[in-house]
Amino acid sequence: MNTVDICNCDKPKEECGVFAIYGKDPEMDVTALTNYALFALQHRGQQSCGIAVNDNGTIIYHKNLGLVSEVFDKDVMSKLKGQMAVGHVRYSTSFENTRENAQPLVTKYVKGTLTIAHNGILTNSKTLRNQLEKEGCLFQGTNDTEVVAYLIAKERLNTRSVEDAVCNAMDKISGAYAFVVMSPTKIIAGRDPLGLKPLSLGKLGDSYIVASETVAFDAIGAEFVRDIDPGEVIVITKDGVRVVKEGSGNKGKMCIFEYIYFARPDSVIEGSSVYESRKEAGKYLARQNNTEADVVIAVPDSGIAAAIGYAEESGLPYEVGLMKNRYIARTFIQPTQKMRENAVRIKLNAIKNVVNGKRVIMVDDSIVRGTTSKRIVKLLREAGATEVHMKISSPPFLYPCYFGTDVGSQDELVAVGRTVEEICEMTGADSLDYLSLDNLMKTPIGARCGFCTSCFDGKYPMDIKEMAEKDPDDKRIFIKNLE
Amino acid sequence: MNTVDICNCDKPKEECGVFAIYGKDPEMDVTALTNYALFALQHRGQQSCGIAVNDNGTIIYHKNLGLVSEVFDKDVMSKLKGQMAVGHVRYSTSFENTRENAQPLVTKYVKGTLTIAHNGILTNSKTLRNQLEKEGCLFQGTNDTEVVAYLIAKERLNTRSVEDAVCNAMDKISGAYAFVVMSPTKIIAGRDPLGLKPLSLGKLGDSYIVASETVAFDAIGAEFVRDIDPGEVIVITKDGVRVVKEGSGNKGKMCIFEYIYFARPDSVIEGSSVYESRKEAGKYLARQNNTEADVVIAVPDSGIAAAIGYAEESGLPYEVGLMKNRYIARTFIQPTQKMRENAVRIKLNAIKNVVNGKRVIMVDDSIVRGTTSKRIVKLLREAGATEVHMKISSPPFLYPCYFGTDVGSQDELVAVGRTVEEICEMTGADSLDYLSLDNLMKTPIGARCGFCTSCFDGKYPMDIKEMAEKDPDDKRIFIKNLE
Amino acid sequence: MNTVDICNCDKPKEECGVFAIYGKDPEMDVTALTNYALFALQHRGQQSCGIAVNDNGTIIYHKNLGLVSEVFDKDVMSKLKGQMAVGHVRYSTSFENTRENAQPLVTKYVKGTLTIAHNGILTNSKTLRNQLEKEGCLFQGTNDTEVVAYLIAKERLNTRSVEDAVCNAMDKISGAYAFVVMSPTKIIAGRDPLGLKPLSLGKLGDSYIVASETVAFDAIGAEFVRDIDPGEVIVITKDGVRVVKEGSGNKGKMCIFEYIYFARPDSVIEGSSVYESRKEAGKYLARQNNTEADVVIAVPDSGIAAAIGYAEESGLPYEVGLMKNRYIARTFIQPTQKMRENAVRIKLNAIKNVVNGKRVIMVDDSIVRGTTSKRIVKLLREAGATEVHMKISSPPFLYPCYFGTDVGSQDELVAVGRTVEEICEMTGADSLDYLSLDNLMKTPIGARCGFCTSCFDGKYPMDIKEMAEKDPDDKRIFIKNLE
Amino acid sequence: MNTVDICNCDKPKEECGVFAIYGKDPEMDVTALTNYALFALQHRGQQSCGIAVNDNGTIIYHKNLGLVSEVFDKDVMSKLKGQMAVGHVRYSTSFENTRENAQPLVTKYVKGTLTIAHNGILTNSKTLRNQLEKEGCLFQGTNDTEVVAYLIAKERLNTRSVEDAVCNAMDKISGAYAFVVMSPTKIIAGRDPLGLKPLSLGKLGDSYIVASETVAFDAIGAEFVRDIDPGEVIVITKDGVRVVKEGSGNKGKMCIFEYIYFARPDSVIEGSSVYESRKEAGKYLARQNNTEADVVIAVPDSGIAAAIGYAEESGLPYEVGLMKNRYIARTFIQPTQKMRENAVRIKLNAIKNVVNGKRVIMVDDSIVRGTTSKRIVKLLREAGATEVHMKISSPPFLYPCYFGTDVGSQDELVAVGRTVEEICEMTGADSLDYLSLDNLMKTPIGARCGFCTSCFDGKYPMDIKEMAEKDPDDKRIFIKNLE
Repeated sequence: MNTVDICNCDKPKEECGVFAIYGKDPEMDVTALTNYALFALQHRGQQSCGIAVNDNGTIIYHKNLGLVSEVFDKDVMSKLKGQMAVGHVRYSTSFENTRENAQPLVTKYVKGTLTIAHNGILTNSKTLRNQLEKEGCLFQGTNDTEVVAYLIAKERLNTRSVEDAVCNAMDKISGAYAFVVMSPTKIIAGRDPLGLKPLSLGKLGDSYIVASETVAFDAIGAEFVRDIDPGEVIVITKDGVRVVKEGSGNKGKMCIFEYIYFARPDSVIEGSSVYESRKEAGKYLARQNNTEADVVIAVPDSGIAAAIGYAEESGLPYEVGLMKNRYIARTFIQPTQKMRENAVRIKLNAIKNVVNGKRVIMVDDSIVRGTTSKRIVKLLREAGATEVHMKISSPPFLYPCYFGTDVGSQDELVAVGRTVEEICEMTGADSLDYLSLDNLMKTPIGARCGFCTSCFDGKYPMDIKEMAEKDPDDKRIFIKNLE
Repeated sequence: MNTVDICNCDKPKEECGVFAIYGKDPEMDVTALTNYALFALQHRGQQSCGIAVNDNGTIIYHKNLGLVSEVFDKDVMSKLKGQMAVGHVRYSTSFENTRENAQPLVTKYVKGTLTIAHNGILTNSKTLRNQLEKEGCLFQGTNDTEVVAYLIAKERLNTRSVEDAVCNAMDKISGAYAFVVMSPTKIIAGRDPLGLKPLSLGKLGDSYIVASETVAFDAIGAEFVRDIDPGEVIVITKDGVRVVKEGSGNKGKMCIFEYIYFARPDSVIEGSSVYESRKEAGKYLARQNNTEADVVIAVPDSGIAAAIGYAEESGLPYEVGLMKNRYIARTFIQPTQKMRENAVRIKLNAIKNVVNGKRVIMVDDSIVRGTTSKRIVKLLREAGATEVHMKISSPPFLYPCYFGTDVGSQDELVAVGRTVEEICEMTGADSLDYLSLDNLMKTPIGARCGFCTSCFDGKYPMDIKEMAEKDPDDKRIFIKNLE
Repeated sequence: MNTVDICNCDKPKEECGVFAIYGKDPEMDVTALTNYALFALQHRGQQSCGIAVNDNGTIIYHKNLGLVSEVFDKDVMSKLKGQMAVGHVRYSTSFENTRENAQPLVTKYVKGTLTIAHNGILTNSKTLRNQLEKEGCLFQGTNDTEVVAYLIAKERLNTRSVEDAVCNAMDKISGAYAFVVMSPTKIIAGRDPLGLKPLSLGKLGDSYIVASETVAFDAIGAEFVRDIDPGEVIVITKDGVRVVKEGSGNKGKMCIFEYIYFARPDSVIEGSSVYESRKEAGKYLARQNNTEADVVIAVPDSGIAAAIGYAEESGLPYEVGLMKNRYIARTFIQPTQKMRENAVRIKLNAIKNVVNGKRVIMVDDSIVRGTTSKRIVKLLREAGATEVHMKISSPPFLYPCYFGTDVGSQDELVAVGRTVEEICEMTGADSLDYLSLDNLMKTPIGARCGFCTSCFDGKYPMDIKEMAEKDPDDKRIFIKNLE
Repeated sequence: MNTVDICNCDKPKEECGVFAIYGKDPEMDVTALTNYALFALQHRGQQSCGIAVNDNGTIIYHKNLGLVSEVFDKDVMSKLKGQMAVGHVRYSTSFENTRENAQPLVTKYVKGTLTIAHNGILTNSKTLRNQLEKEGCLFQGTNDTEVVAYLIAKERLNTRSVEDAVCNAMDKISGAYAFVVMSPTKIIAGRDPLGLKPLSLGKLGDSYIVASETVAFDAIGAEFVRDIDPGEVIVITKDGVRVVKEGSGNKGKMCIFEYIYFARPDSVIEGSSVYESRKEAGKYLARQNNTEADVVIAVPDSGIAAAIGYAEESGLPYEVGLMKNRYIARTFIQPTQKMRENAVRIKLNAIKNVVNGKRVIMVDDSIVRGTTSKRIVKLLREAGATEVHMKISSPPFLYPCYFGTDVGSQDELVAVGRTVEEICEMTGADSLDYLSLDNLMKTPIGARCGFCTSCFDGKYPMDIKEMAEKDPDDKRIFIKNLE
């Protein structure tokens, strides 16, 4: 398509959101609950989604490209009846955005059905695929889920239970991930040993639930029980929840971008409110650099919490200086070069009365390529802002992420090879201040976890050799499914 | 459809947005500009939209049910090539939501083509239709646009120009409206004598533009020139703009709800910023009643400006206490009764850390039926709010609007026949304060216009006899077009 | 679209089919019956279709571009409930193929609703439109139906009944047409004074039906009553059928192409079986020219009846020599020039065993441009035919039709300016024989009607001045509705 | 869906059609050729279709539910560029009609890509799946293709070439099948040892082609080279065609229904023309029983060739007595019980002039349930036929087919447990004559093959134990993919 997503084109992209529910109450409509939960998790992936329900051992599923509201209609929902359900929302880089890659993956194996949904990435995927192919395995898609499924299916031949097979399979994979697996009678959920991706346990009446973010619990009126520990695997059966693999015992390395941008502000991750973390980031920004100004505004929506924090700490008034158009669809018609300038105007508009004649503090959560920032600064100046000071509530993006976050190629990153002054000049801002990594580390107040900050400091928490050394031939796409 | 719009189901509904451009520069892509402008005006109507372009006298048009992003794709856009364009977005009550009623209306008449788009309602529509039918006229739709078109076509038989015909036709109609008319070589625009609906003139290079709101100018990088006066009619030709009917000379009676809810905060209407007006309303609310509280939050999105004003005036902190889900589609699957409670949870979620243990000031722009307010109060209490004080930045809705605003039937209005205490009890709020009409009148600071406040005080600015006396037989639908 | 209809691209095109039913039995599902009837009439028009039902005075309708099977689904059907119905299928030249032009036309006028469906063309349409525009009328589409509707609406102001208005309106129009009109309580049907278009009256139980062809009666199990006479107008009310305007009394001038190609073989028109007429044409062809050959084959499907007649008369065996692919859709992807040769192979395939080593008589109903004939001859030779003799069951197409049949422009007609020998050479056939006009006139055995043969002899049965003199400016399209 | 296929609802259903081309000429558009070929093979399966092209080792593919004309549009076609292509059309029983089961199956395995399309059924599928699952295999669909793919992938680990792997895999499977396999550089094709399904080799210029029926060659202007022998496997590479596994040497057991009904009349299978075979069947029918009558008609389309043969042999005239409506879509709205009688009238109509007052010989290819026959007999009587004699050009259907032909359950077969007289009475025919099995065996004149006639005589040519003994538990569907 000749379309361009102008909504979030300059933000890092998350991979996925997962959800699973084991309905104890026969009256419980697990499909509707999963549907609602996926609406709440939609921000984690807008490219494809799916729901698989387990009706006494038979799996009925539906998945497709599109938003939850597009993929599931009344007719489909009415056919998805069961007692357990797994849901998934997905973001993916373009060539992989096929229905074959949509999740959950539903397969038949030696012990009946095996349904898998996961968020994250395997860092030894290539090695594992090669090895599995050498054992005669076939891959119909290009994602990691089939790899995991094969590992479980093979382990299941030598284990007494599916949960044991899952635990054994986990020992073979490396990476950053959270997953849910549904067998004919159980739901199994787990996180990678470093806990880079979030996963929480909830409860609705007697029924246990697993979700990537706590907002999924809020959406269905469920209560939060606890986070799944890094490295932990649990199984939910008719008898309740049981730990089948103890957590790795360390504090883990949660992806710090969950707090900065990915997660919804109303989520609580590892004990720390996302909204409060972002607001705290704004406060630290205010403390870092006492910029003289008249008004604090946010780049909506992700800069709002930090802007409110900045205003509170600095004593400057918080105002709505930029309006976001809520009707811009994901598939926006590609503007001609001539019209491209207008494109950002449709997405964002400055409120003149707020910024005219004012020295403006403009708070955003991150800068990737800097092109959108440049256009926003221009917008504010045209609306009469006398000064525009950019405050970024995270450090400069300098290193590639190998754990499932898409930030584009390194040579697109504005901060690589540029001083702050040069970025200022490039974007047209009067000043620019990034939140320091030290200060960022203090923002998820009360968080029970450690953090992966490799995109800022290049300190990768696990071996990334296979990922980093990918030669061009490995990038070759063997199969393209036109949708 | 078994769908329900849970997004804005408890808000008054606006009728339409109009746009027209006369492109002087042959390189100018009037279609793309109109498309962008309609994105900016989409909040004024989400049911149908259309664009008609004038290519040297031939009108090429496309209109359909749906959002701008749904109705116009690259293929359609590429076929809409011309030098002038008229665009329209429409809201309508359900039985009229057919493609036949979508605008612009494009017709062939004695002097070539006649294209009309309008926002508003005729109060003598029934009388005019009856009269026109008695002259042998046919009506293919049920809206007022065909009535206006016939009047112009008939006047054109005895006038020297289409603009004269338009002015004469205007003398025959009563009501609240703003319109644009495109002839083979001209664009004509006008407002009703009391100016209840907004309409502004803008300019992009040498090309003149007319739009319902100034945000349409911002979206295409055009500059605001001036508002069209109440009762004024202008014509745009290759020689520029000319007034063909002077304004009525009075300050007019702008619909006050444009400031309260309809217009976008970044619009400026009759010289007054909508954002500032709403913020001002929040300040007056704070002054009206010094409620002890810990935090001020908004019901998003329409309560945000007033909440910021309230916070500023009261000295209480402004926080994001309620998160709105951006992925809820207009056509949301009707939840079962059992699930209905969850429906509001998907749309809105409380941020616990913000409201837990707090006395909360909750600012909203208006209450219609009160059902959504009740659910939000419950949401906040479940999130730990110890007190919830509702502050409404407009007076109680008490009288029907006959000028194009849909507020549902009078017996659904929560304020009719209930005291403030009773509404408090019904919604579960600890206190409730409406902005007084007196204070409301002060909020559009510097506005050059007067206001229609009939929905609050029942003082209608024109004869509404035909509208109010409609007997049931008149409501009979003669034609239903299934879409 | 870059699509080409390779199915019937070299055949004349009919304009429309009409249907109406007045259901006396309250249990009667007039919508389903109309739907079935339109399936039976689909060959008369495949571009758009529509059904309007009258539910105690309220008209509910649905029409759209597409086949009956595409436009009407179960959901739409269930909403079309009423006691009377009007249906229509339409063919039109491309620029007019818009939803606005789809029929029936449903309007509101001085006496309630007025629903019209017609087949044919007005020869004084331009004069009438100009006159109506001078009285202030508006035209939303470009077809003749709106003209007829206005004439009826205006006549209705001075007549005592809608049927009188229809009769008076008919006095003002010239042309070749058959129509049905539905008022709030009646159905009126009529044919032009020369009866160029067919229209028959049928009966199902107590309920009267009107249809373009008798196959519509067969499809719903109704019985044929009689043909509507040329110039006759009838009205169907709760009291049954009544003639409101006597027929013109002459034998009329039925379009001879109804027998040659348009009508379905299983229809009976004016007392003569279409199948028998075509078979008779084949017999005359056999008598015209005693060609030595081994086998008689048809160009499917329209040549089959004549081929059987030819075989019977000549004593040669009839065989299936060409197979038609039933899965070629109307919108077939435009083949590249290189692939174009293949395109006909997909549509038609020769059965080698039938034609190999044989002298083949190939019977077709008509030749328009000759390009398809050329390809078919080539196909047969490649399959081994030693000789190919083309037998055409109608005379050469030499003159334009002004009465609603689309044969392309005159300079595309292969017979214009070419001798039979030249056409033979051009198509590659060994011989070519057209049915003589004299013989053609004998084929509709027992027909009660006279015939219009102007496309063969240029003798137009009415004034065609306005049609023939159309200057290029009149062809200008004022309005294009993109669908 | 509440739809019913009234077109062919009483005919046996074929499984699939396959096609593959290795384009030697770089200018050759293998995608367009495959598309055209699938149009020609569409009669073999109308539920889903797909094309996979090999572009220097990368497989690009598209498959979906629907007809070829629905699944492939210009946009998709333009993206399918390559040098080799595999195409498939599919019929399947309802629960398996999912996109997951559409073919070709495209997978990545140890040696790159593996693309498979097949027609037919494995009789030891269950055993093989169980065994593969026990080795850790996963199944994403429910069809046999994945089984074959796994067998090839596993054999490939121990063989020197993919063609060797295919040959070895073939040794493990039993059943009735024809397949094409595409590796990164080769196309491999083969038939089961008994040759129950047809498969032919063709050539276009220097490029070799494989197709289920010769009509696919005709559609693209290719020449027929030879049939693939029962049990034979060939490989097509850049060096041309090579046999990699010799045929089993026997005459095989071609499904006799290919001649009776499945194949297109213009196909030539194993040296015998399908049209001639059917015509011959008609001749034998005429000889079997010298019924006095006036006219011979066919039940269109499958009875036409036999009817022509009958007429020729009997000396009675062949006429078109039943017209088939070409516009009935596959998804026809389910008529109410009351309307059901009409449903057959829409599909078929009798030509009264042909049958009125006549003793009619009605020729059809087969009877399955007898319900449609009953309605047709009634139709003919209502049109005035004085006698209706049913002549069926195949023996009574008495035994289930385990090789891919769907005839419904045995208790639906009208011939099971009924005498000819009872079937006559049930259908209302005056007489009924089935072609004897002996005579049927003589009809494919010059055929180089033997035949499977197990549906008539119960003599199955291979072990069908696994198929016949399927217990209810095996029929359990483990996975349902909602489309």
